[in-house]
Amino acid sequence: MNLEDLRKDIDGLDARILALLNERMEKAILTRRFKDALADPGREAAVIEKVRRQSRCLIDPEFSTGLYRSIIEQSKALQAKGLRTIGFQGEHGAYSEMAARSWGPDAAAIPCREFVDVFDAVESGLFDFGIVPVENTLGGLVGPVNSILVYTGLRIVAAVDMGISHCLLAVPGSDHREIRTVISHSQALAQCRRFLARNKLDPEPFYDTAGAARELSQTRAKGTAAIASRFAAELYDLEIIKEAIQDSENNRTRFFVLARDGAASQEGSKGSAVFSAEGDKAGALYGVLEIFARRGINLTRIESVPDKPGDYAIFIDFEGSRGDARVVEALAEAQRTARDFRLLGFYDEARV
Amino acid sequence: MNLEDLRKDIDGLDARILALLNERMEKAILTRRFKDALADPGREAAVIEKVRRQSRCLIDPEFSTGLYRSIIEQSKALQAKGLRTIGFQGEHGAYSEMAARSWGPDAAAIPCREFVDVFDAVESGLFDFGIVPVENTLGGLVGPVNSILVYTGLRIVAAVDMGISHCLLAVPGSDHREIRTVISHSQALAQCRRFLARNKLDPEPFYDTAGAARELSQTRAKGTAAIASRFAAELYDLEIIKEAIQDSENNRTRFFVLARDGAASQEGSKGSAVFSAEGDKAGALYGVLEIFARRGINLTRIESVPDKPGDYAIFIDFEGSRGDARVVEALAEAQRTARDFRLLGFYDEARV
Repeated sequence: MNLEDLRKDIDGLDARILALLNERMEKAILTRRFKDALADPGREAAVIEKVRRQSRCLIDPEFSTGLYRSIIEQSKALQAKGLRTIGFQGEHGAYSEMAARSWGPDAAAIPCREFVDVFDAVESGLFDFGIVPVENTLGGLVGPVNSILVYTGLRIVAAVDMGISHCLLAVPGSDHREIRTVISHSQALAQCRRFLARNKLDPEPFYDTAGAARELSQTRAKGTAAIASRFAAELYDLEIIKEAIQDSENNRTRFFVLARDGAASQEGSKGSAVFSAEGDKAGALYGVLEIFARRGINLTRIESVPDKPGDYAIFIDFEGSRGDARVVEALAEAQRTARDFRLLGFYDEARV
Repeated sequence: MNLEDLRKDIDGLDARILALLNERMEKAILTRRFKDALADPGREAAVIEKVRRQSRCLIDPEFSTGLYRSIIEQSKALQAKGLRTIGFQGEHGAYSEMAARSWGPDAAAIPCREFVDVFDAVESGLFDFGIVPVENTLGGLVGPVNSILVYTGLRIVAAVDMGISHCLLAVPGSDHREIRTVISHSQALAQCRRFLARNKLDPEPFYDTAGAARELSQTRAKGTAAIASRFAAELYDLEIIKEAIQDSENNRTRFFVLARDGAASQEGSKGSAVFSAEGDKAGALYGVLEIFARRGINLTRIESVPDKPGDYAIFIDFEGSRGDARVVEALAEAQRTARDFRLLGFYDEARV
């Protein structure tokens, strides 16, 4: 172990400390909604006391408690901003987080382990919003998300249709010719299959694209690259060897931004609804299509997902706003005739 | 998730941040020996720049770079102290670390993954000292350590004979009657077997005692306790339910403090040596015993460990200092007659 090795270790520790500090700020802004006042001197004193007790051999308690006093001040300043929060599935650097940032650059994007955690946190009021991918031009419907959407009481308040540009990322300063293995989510690897074959690179599945980038930045494994977003490259301080390495140019993912009913505007020129079709799927679908067609309302998307055995849930997207009389009539008629017909929301869709 | 849950999460993050900060300070004091001057403005600017680049969404770069300026200042102040470093195997809170602190309260105790890492780091000059357990009254010789000792070029500079008091630790405020499972190193569990049986507690082996305490403080698993030192309890903010739960009162571990030859004093009233016995083990042993007995030098310990197939390495401890003419003569004679006879060092032994 020499000076360079030690400094690399220190750099790795700093990246982890900053990530934990960020997570601490995320938790802190979430506490805001449970507190009457921003300051809580009792809790602050307890944190400082705990920090003092846990200050190890090399950590002078005067130093660490001073550090934490400024962390608490910064945390309160952040809480005072009243940032909106938006949950996404994955790690920081995920494509979902990019979509969240394009929708609300000032909102705090907060990572969740599973899709259902995103829904739960919005439903319980912990987060203001959630963002979930619903379909991809190459991979089709995002099954787990649509299955939850059928039953959620949340409203769609925005849609983001985002081009996915996969980047090949490496440790800065590493020799690109040595790269043999590429880690990423299996879907991202599949979308870059021809690129990998052409360059004789072995794909190695990882549970997450952004997670693969973080892993690479931590292990700095020789001969390994990751496929993830440009945003993940910035976040994890990796070098972009090549951008847009996906085999098809038409790689886009559509995301829905969700909020509790009544918690957000229902303005917008597009609407979504869902209903059930049991047994006679074609008949149920025809009935609803006819209601919209008769009034000259354009349907932009029709998708069905398997629900209970023998049952289907059918999603429709249509053009029109909640102020449009034809739309209001069509929805009222569909609600009378189609089984479990439910409006999911009116919103605007952004293409980025 | 409510306010209490969020605050528990924040407490957990703070414990991890403090542990990483401590690790950063450890690495920083190790860089000292590779640098001509304490300050390195180029490196400091690079660290600040890296911190600025990696400051996430909720981390204001002005805040994080300010924080790191004070971390760097503190780190330099610590480097200027010129602390001696002592490596130990295990995690912070290990019994080895307690022994290290009793020997040198001002030395920086630095954790290593394996015993061999402790030896390597002292041999290469990365650490000033290393501390390793050599025998336990209940468990006998610590095999892996003695096997390395046979070949090391390091000198024993001190010995610590420490009473081991296992503590049953729980998450503060948890209901003790709910405890069903106890995690710890298998040897610690074995030493508390009767206590566990009497209290109907299920032992669950963990790779390390201090690691079990850290794990418990992080997971806060219900119905689980850990067996570790009182020191680990303080470090990981756990409650001591019961002290000295080992079945035998006579549970002591003997540690050697090691340094490079010439790097530390060889004063002391005790000596250790090692030699080889091939084939006629009894004869080789008798020959050496006779050399010491003839001069009235007391042997306080004789232990043999298997070396190469058919070979044994025999460790002896004797009373006497390097200024004692009888000792000097005995060592000279043993070196002439016994195979691979090697003095391991003169030192004082502390009982704590």
